[in-house]
Amino acid sequence: MAKKYLMTPGPTPVPEEIRNEMAKPIIHHRTKEYQAIFKDATDGLKKMFKTSNDVFTFTSSGTGAMEASVVNICSPGDKVIVVRGGKFGERFGEIAKAYGVEVIALDVPWGSGPCPADIKDLLKNNPGVKAVYTTLCETSTATVFDIKAIGEVVRATGAIYVVDAISGLGADKFENDAWGVDIAICGSQKGLMIPPGLAFCSVSQKAWKAVETSKLPKFYFNFKKYKKAMDATDTPFTSAITLVIGLKKALEVINGKGVDNVIAEHIAQAEAFRSAVKAMGLTLFSKSPSNAVTAVNTPAGMDADALIKLLKTEYGVTFAGGQEKLKGTIFRAAHMGGIDREHTIESIKALESALAKMGYKFKTGSGVDAVTKMLGK
Amino acid sequence: MAKKYLMTPGPTPVPEEIRNEMAKPIIHHRTKEYQAIFKDATDGLKKMFKTSNDVFTFTSSGTGAMEASVVNICSPGDKVIVVRGGKFGERFGEIAKAYGVEVIALDVPWGSGPCPADIKDLLKNNPGVKAVYTTLCETSTATVFDIKAIGEVVRATGAIYVVDAISGLGADKFENDAWGVDIAICGSQKGLMIPPGLAFCSVSQKAWKAVETSKLPKFYFNFKKYKKAMDATDTPFTSAITLVIGLKKALEVINGKGVDNVIAEHIAQAEAFRSAVKAMGLTLFSKSPSNAVTAVNTPAGMDADALIKLLKTEYGVTFAGGQEKLKGTIFRAAHMGGIDREHTIESIKALESALAKMGYKFKTGSGVDAVTKMLGK
Repeated sequence: MAKKYLMTPGPTPVPEEIRNEMAKPIIHHRTKEYQAIFKDATDGLKKMFKTSNDVFTFTSSGTGAMEASVVNICSPGDKVIVVRGGKFGERFGEIAKAYGVEVIALDVPWGSGPCPADIKDLLKNNPGVKAVYTTLCETSTATVFDIKAIGEVVRATGAIYVVDAISGLGADKFENDAWGVDIAICGSQKGLMIPPGLAFCSVSQKAWKAVETSKLPKFYFNFKKYKKAMDATDTPFTSAITLVIGLKKALEVINGKGVDNVIAEHIAQAEAFRSAVKAMGLTLFSKSPSNAVTAVNTPAGMDADALIKLLKTEYGVTFAGGQEKLKGTIFRAAHMGGIDREHTIESIKALESALAKMGYKFKTGSGVDAVTKMLGK
Repeated sequence: MAKKYLMTPGPTPVPEEIRNEMAKPIIHHRTKEYQAIFKDATDGLKKMFKTSNDVFTFTSSGTGAMEASVVNICSPGDKVIVVRGGKFGERFGEIAKAYGVEVIALDVPWGSGPCPADIKDLLKNNPGVKAVYTTLCETSTATVFDIKAIGEVVRATGAIYVVDAISGLGADKFENDAWGVDIAICGSQKGLMIPPGLAFCSVSQKAWKAVETSKLPKFYFNFKKYKKAMDATDTPFTSAITLVIGLKKALEVINGKGVDNVIAEHIAQAEAFRSAVKAMGLTLFSKSPSNAVTAVNTPAGMDADALIKLLKTEYGVTFAGGQEKLKGTIFRAAHMGGIDREHTIESIKALESALAKMGYKFKTGSGVDAVTKMLGK
């Protein structure tokens, strides 16, 4: 059977050494042995987030941690600013509305990032805004937002700065504390290269003050329960043991290399991939491309989903399609987590073959030349 | 290294064939391949629950599904009856209160089950009660409740009947539809013998009517989102792919044998274990012992946690201790999921040795004779 290349922006391939670690006989979670694993994983997360704040681990998808970032700091009737430039920014707004929190939306065109000055104006014109919700990498549009610049605007106000870094962390540059992020959210199946099932929240001192006064109802995602348990190196509810064991191992790998070096590797892959598709005459969807994932417009008249199907069935390469209004017009390839140099090169080779088979005219070998020029053969 | 025996009431040992299945290279969740796995797992759950209702899979601990059973059917100010006979019954009450739902508590002594007539009286004296929350096996006290008899009382009223079957399912008899259960809750790391990280809710038509009018806020645990996705054989948020793959495999094993046969195996182990500890002169904590887990009182003057530590370090057998007010006075051994005949016999052998080492006087070999008489050598 030919080797398969999973290039989706979550899950990303889980390296064999991590899969094997998770496949060992299970241990109980209320033991010193597990406490040590959980503590190592938590310390490793803090390094990766670049934070001295607490980082909590939830058994949930990333959306669960997004909900946690709303229900733990807001009260009914609070106003929050939500940057909506794709499916996941919109989700923050949907969660806030579901809990009776008023959403001041900053809608930006899909594929673009928000202008920090616009957020500054919204904060000025809406005194008392409880929080600003935005995204590091908007996975649906493969767009990176300027989290550092927005942070400079938000930190000068009383608003809590919440960043969905679910797909960006480990591929796009991110500095939790230096950039003034109060709550950063991540998921397990992206840059952390373990299976889906865990989500994470860092929580700053500024955010804790909001937690103390928050009146929204919560139980499973209640930060206070996680904080109390964490102070005893424990979790309030049964921990997803095998995933945390994988997390510990993945963070050993990532922090062993150094997170900046890991990010540099993924940036190199992202740049090489973008260079290759451009050499083939294709265009990028995003005006501010993320290094976690690249969205490519299919040539006029070509159905992206047909291309994706062909790549998967004939060449063993799995790209992701467009979501919602982008369905059928883009394909997305990730560069984070377990996706390595070989994945990047092989996916471009397959893309050349598939595009040719579908009748797209371009200079044969131009993509492969571009990608290998940057990543080596 | 000597073989280890994990006897805790969650996680239970995960059979090697299931661990290996989960350790294969990961696949993407928005694919026909994964849809087929997810559908098989869901169909398998319905067989195990003995229900024709929908069964939803959440990425969370069991507590997340308990929260789902509150936020999806209640509205602020609703009254619910909560049977509190241990840590997990109490948790239902804590969740309800966190969401502004009024709790009518039926407190029963730890180690006993509720009297259905008491629930009938409470329902009669509190017209309009939205739901009755109770537990199949109260894991903290190793006590099984008479879910069938309570069901006969509740089904005659407008109240929704919610049963926490997290640790009981697959070891204690349970008939979702025949017993009139509206919402049954289960977790992955007990009778289902996969790692923790998934939780399940069955939802009856009667419960759906309450879902339609429920006004409590929710997003991640919103049944309607799961229902809409399930109708397209999908999940609303990223699925915990590897755990669902393990779930499918585990259900193939369980339903392959037949759930009644699996329960019969575990009942035989539970009966043999109870017989052995009684033969050694020990007493059971529960007046209504569950077949999922047995709680044993330690001899007067013996610290249960010291016994548990000795068993783990010297003999490789992991029992669980008592929780909250039972800490130090009981130890608990489970009989569900991946815990088999060999575990049961070896744990009794180790228990004999450890008790003797700690100075407890009993007839040597009495426990082993009793357990092997019932399970074979």
